[in-house]
Amino acid sequence: MYTEKGQRTRQHFIEVSANLFNKKGYAGTAVSEILDVAGYSKGALYRTFTDKEELAREAFKHNLKKLQKGLIEAIQSNDKAIDRLLAVPDFYLSNAIDHIVPGGCPILNTAIEVDDTDPRMNEVVKNAFSTWKNLIVQIINEGKSSNTFDKNLDENVLAMYIIATIEGTIVLAKTFKDKSILNTNMDHLKKYIQNIV
Amino acid sequence: MYTEKGQRTRQHFIEVSANLFNKKGYAGTAVSEILDVAGYSKGALYRTFTDKEELAREAFKHNLKKLQKGLIEAIQSNDKAIDRLLAVPDFYLSNAIDHIVPGGCPILNTAIEVDDTDPRMNEVVKNAFSTWKNLIVQIINEGKSSNTFDKNLDENVLAMYIIATIEGTIVLAKTFKDKSILNTNMDHLKKYIQNIV
Repeated sequence: MYTEKGQRTRQHFIEVSANLFNKKGYAGTAVSEILDVAGYSKGALYRTFTDKEELAREAFKHNLKKLQKGLIEAIQSNDKAIDRLLAVPDFYLSNAIDHIVPGGCPILNTAIEVDDTDPRMNEVVKNAFSTWKNLIVQIINEGKSSNTFDKNLDENVLAMYIIATIEGTIVLAKTFKDKSILNTNMDHLKKYIQNIV
Repeated sequence: MYTEKGQRTRQHFIEVSANLFNKKGYAGTAVSEILDVAGYSKGALYRTFTDKEELAREAFKHNLKKLQKGLIEAIQSNDKAIDRLLAVPDFYLSNAIDHIVPGGCPILNTAIEVDDTDPRMNEVVKNAFSTWKNLIVQIINEGKSSNTFDKNLDENVLAMYIIATIEGTIVLAKTFKDKSILNTNMDHLKKYIQNIV
């Protein structure tokens, strides 16, 4: 579909705009700013992307892929179901603020921006949350199958609770520029998980 | 500072833009849109506000006041410390999505938009979270003083955990357009609170 050079240009636009969009939001990032940071012309942008929305979707997927890769590696480096489950808050404890994607969690940032305004992008965000949820649900079901978790545990409900607490904690830690909020909240969450499973 | 008519114009701009900003974000709301909904001219806007930023700050304070009033009433309609504390998640259970301020929690929405971009507005958001946190801290301290709560409870940490879980839950419920997430998560949070205090 694209020449090799076209593909490189496309990738470059995705990488630079992924950081900008995640920090400043989609509406808050002007095309002129993307061109400045990319060092390419407007013509080059519109030869490789239909519009800013297509670039925004690709940039989101780019950030998401980095995040998911890190999370899956963190989970898989543990054997027991309980350790795999606790690896989820631990992963965000180490990576939430700026380590993997500058600007915080891209799913959270995009969710807030699009929930009332952009049904298509809201669907993309919903899928990202669902993928995350399914990862957690799978771990809980492993724990139930191996009789190490309570059989009556509702895996869908617990997964959503874990995600909510992580995302809300990122909001607070970023607003207060205080990583200790992340430490204490993930500590509470981990104790809650250990207590309930 | 303003004539009576000027004051009315100012209030009208604040009210219409408060809803727009909370749904679409500050960067996502064009001045032309505010003028359309307000039914006033650009001249009228700039006679009563220095710039869009001043209007945005006033609109945020307007939304915040409505939210805080509702929350304080919900807390004060209970006597015992535990009921006053549980009234916090219950208030968001009934009001989080669109009841008080269309577009969800204004503190959350604004926090995400400004955390990496606007230090002045980030400070306003930080104060809003701190006021909310202090309300919760006060209830926990009442419970500790009356010997109904565990003396070793860290009121600051628990307050932040409660706020984080509520805010993260609102993100999920709004993204999935599913109020049941709010029900199940607030249920988990309330059980956690009852267990820990």
